Amino acid sequence: MELENLFGDLLKQARLKAGMTQETLAFQAELDRTYISLLETGKRQPTLMTLFALSKALELRPSDIIKEIEKKVGYY
Amino acid sequence: MELENLFGDLLKQARLKAGMTQETLAFQAELDRTYISLLETGKRQPTLMTLFALSKALELRPSDIIKEIEKKVGYY
Repeated sequence: MELENLFGDLLKQARLKAGMTQETLAFQAELDRTYISLLETGKRQPTLMTLFALSKALELRPSDIIKEIEKKVGYY
Repeated sequence: MELENLFGDLLKQARLKAGMTQETLAFQAELDRTYISLLETGKRQPTLMTLFALSKALELRPSDIIKEIEKKVGYY
């Protein structure tokens, strides 16, 4: 699976686990709601700043999200 | 310091530590040399794919690079 799709799936799972709508996450991360949807569907890739803003809003560590992706792509 | 500059500094340090020129790193990560320079000077931010491509070329874990940034911005 492509990196963008892996990130999108993880983002959606984390958002739902946090009980947030795309609107709420977008507001808290100071991003546009449509951008959240594009990220979740793998149509856009996050930049470093977007990764940190989303992680903060979801109360996760950016490095933990990246670690999850590393596991899924077998980076180890 | 801004995230882009923190990443740029870390990228340059890792590249020099690996004994690589910008050309060599660009070739191995399949990126353009000028893009490496723009990243190192904080003028561009890496996407997820760029982060993974650079990390692979530098034989580092993407999550370790992100952890370094988290420490520098006091994310903990």
